[in-house]
Amino acid sequence: MIIDCHGHYTTAPKQLQAFRDDQIAELKAPPPSRTKKPVQVTDDELRASVQPQLNFQRDRGTDLTVFSPRASAMAHHIGDGVTSQHWAEHCNDLIYRVCGLFPMSFVGVCQLPQTPGMSPTSSIAELKRCVTELGFIGCNLNPDPSGGHWTAPPLTDRYWYPFYEAMVELDVPAMVHVSASCNPNFHATGAHYLNADTTAFMQFLSADLFKDFPTLRMIIPHGGGAVPYHWGRYRGLAQDMKRPPLPDLIRDNVFFDTCVYHQPGIDLLLKVVPADNILFGSEMVGAVRGIDPETGHYFDDTKRYVDGAALSGADRGKIFEGNVRKVYPRINTRLAQVQA
Amino acid sequence: MIIDCHGHYTTAPKQLQAFRDDQIAELKAPPPSRTKKPVQVTDDELRASVQPQLNFQRDRGTDLTVFSPRASAMAHHIGDGVTSQHWAEHCNDLIYRVCGLFPMSFVGVCQLPQTPGMSPTSSIAELKRCVTELGFIGCNLNPDPSGGHWTAPPLTDRYWYPFYEAMVELDVPAMVHVSASCNPNFHATGAHYLNADTTAFMQFLSADLFKDFPTLRMIIPHGGGAVPYHWGRYRGLAQDMKRPPLPDLIRDNVFFDTCVYHQPGIDLLLKVVPADNILFGSEMVGAVRGIDPETGHYFDDTKRYVDGAALSGADRGKIFEGNVRKVYPRINTRLAQVQA
Repeated sequence: MIIDCHGHYTTAPKQLQAFRDDQIAELKAPPPSRTKKPVQVTDDELRASVQPQLNFQRDRGTDLTVFSPRASAMAHHIGDGVTSQHWAEHCNDLIYRVCGLFPMSFVGVCQLPQTPGMSPTSSIAELKRCVTELGFIGCNLNPDPSGGHWTAPPLTDRYWYPFYEAMVELDVPAMVHVSASCNPNFHATGAHYLNADTTAFMQFLSADLFKDFPTLRMIIPHGGGAVPYHWGRYRGLAQDMKRPPLPDLIRDNVFFDTCVYHQPGIDLLLKVVPADNILFGSEMVGAVRGIDPETGHYFDDTKRYVDGAALSGADRGKIFEGNVRKVYPRINTRLAQVQA
Repeated sequence: MIIDCHGHYTTAPKQLQAFRDDQIAELKAPPPSRTKKPVQVTDDELRASVQPQLNFQRDRGTDLTVFSPRASAMAHHIGDGVTSQHWAEHCNDLIYRVCGLFPMSFVGVCQLPQTPGMSPTSSIAELKRCVTELGFIGCNLNPDPSGGHWTAPPLTDRYWYPFYEAMVELDVPAMVHVSASCNPNFHATGAHYLNADTTAFMQFLSADLFKDFPTLRMIIPHGGGAVPYHWGRYRGLAQDMKRPPLPDLIRDNVFFDTCVYHQPGIDLLLKVVPADNILFGSEMVGAVRGIDPETGHYFDDTKRYVDGAALSGADRGKIFEGNVRKVYPRINTRLAQVQA
């Protein structure tokens, strides 16, 4: 079985965006509604909306996608806690319905109702709802709800600890994933995403978060940002800072996906990062939508690069399936239920 | 001749830091002095201070370092325009003296007196002084004088254009180089530096800056941040955004150095980025100071990685010398003067 750990629902029916547009319009012409308006979508509309995703999965030979709401649309910097709460609930509810319609193809990961300046404890209830009621297996945690102003404390700060306690209790990991940037310096998918990945890794390297939470698991997407390319720099920084060697530091806690859109990049990732810490992912349908004229294949068809890399069968198995089952253990229960 | 395009004066005599400490102390207990206090350093002290750098150059087999003030100490976010002006002048004056003492080993690049919220036109006078009076061949341009809050406009904004006009007139390039981070999210050398590199590249990709300034040249240090590792992502983003292919987009204007501290990273850089756009650099004595236990050599001895890479002799010559002479043309006049 081939499991893609990084898929976003970027093709949701237009009613979802209509809700959001309405929500944002009210913020601009207050008072904003404090009651949650409905999003009316039929099952047929949901089925049709994920056909592009399902077609890609079939064509590329992947079986199951760990599926979460569109990352760039989370936009936690818009509005307040109520805005984010309503928006996250609707986005997660649609993911839940898609996973119910195609239980062999999708398993859910939730968006959190984060908002700048509000403690992440306010996201615990939605995490619990998604995991215990909707069958989700993880969450996307935004280290910068301000959208490019980086006003929250580092992920290693005790500010985040109550949320981590909930993650540990539920035995779910988080993908560290920012959203849209409202800072004109940062293009979202071309800078802000990768910067956040790099930033989070260096935070993890610098502090003892995983001594406090030995079973906490974080996935750093987009191939780990700049990290594998600068693996020597990070090995050297860790050594200068008297920190543990990188493989020890990340072993049970920090994982990279394979969202790197060319063969030399994937080859580097697989060469320097231990196979136990790499999860197959494509970020599909997502950041880059075109076909690479150099290969004739989609840039984001990352399965081809992993297939094309020099890997043992055992390592390939870990990357395509085993590590996802290890990092998101609730996927095993979920699959057993579906297959029963 | 082997020219290292990226060296910082991190071993300056302690009197320089004493000046800075005094300057910062006054800011904390105002009123700060608006007159520039002296920095008294003898030539012998300067000679002694650069011995570590000279020893590394000799041991590693590099001839000449493009030498600039310590990047992390620029700290443009501290104080105001007067603070930065005095600090930049002292830092640049010491670089000038070192270059005068060892003219075959060092050539100068200047720190700019940037400060948050003040137009970069205020840096033009110091750039002109350094280039026309001190014989410097370029500058370090900080895209984020706020030190991790990213409050300045993108480098492609017209805000920066008057400064670019001065660069073009003087025929000097800029290395895009941030300084210390005062945002606790960003470790300086482990996150902020690389994020700035990635951010700047995506800004350049997204706008027509080099149509407006066809001869403007920017060096993106630290191997281009995350960019070469994600070369496929950037090729795809450029294509999706109807921008030119990357080699055309960067050809005469954007260059990466080789400050990547392991062989697989350098191999990737040299594989995906055209050799015409790569300049040898080590960032030495700098970010990572230890010896790699895997190789027995210094992490930042980047010459070894370039020597160890599969490269034609012509490309190696470009990377070690030709491209630096092309990007920093004033180096040629400078070397001719010194050798005469």
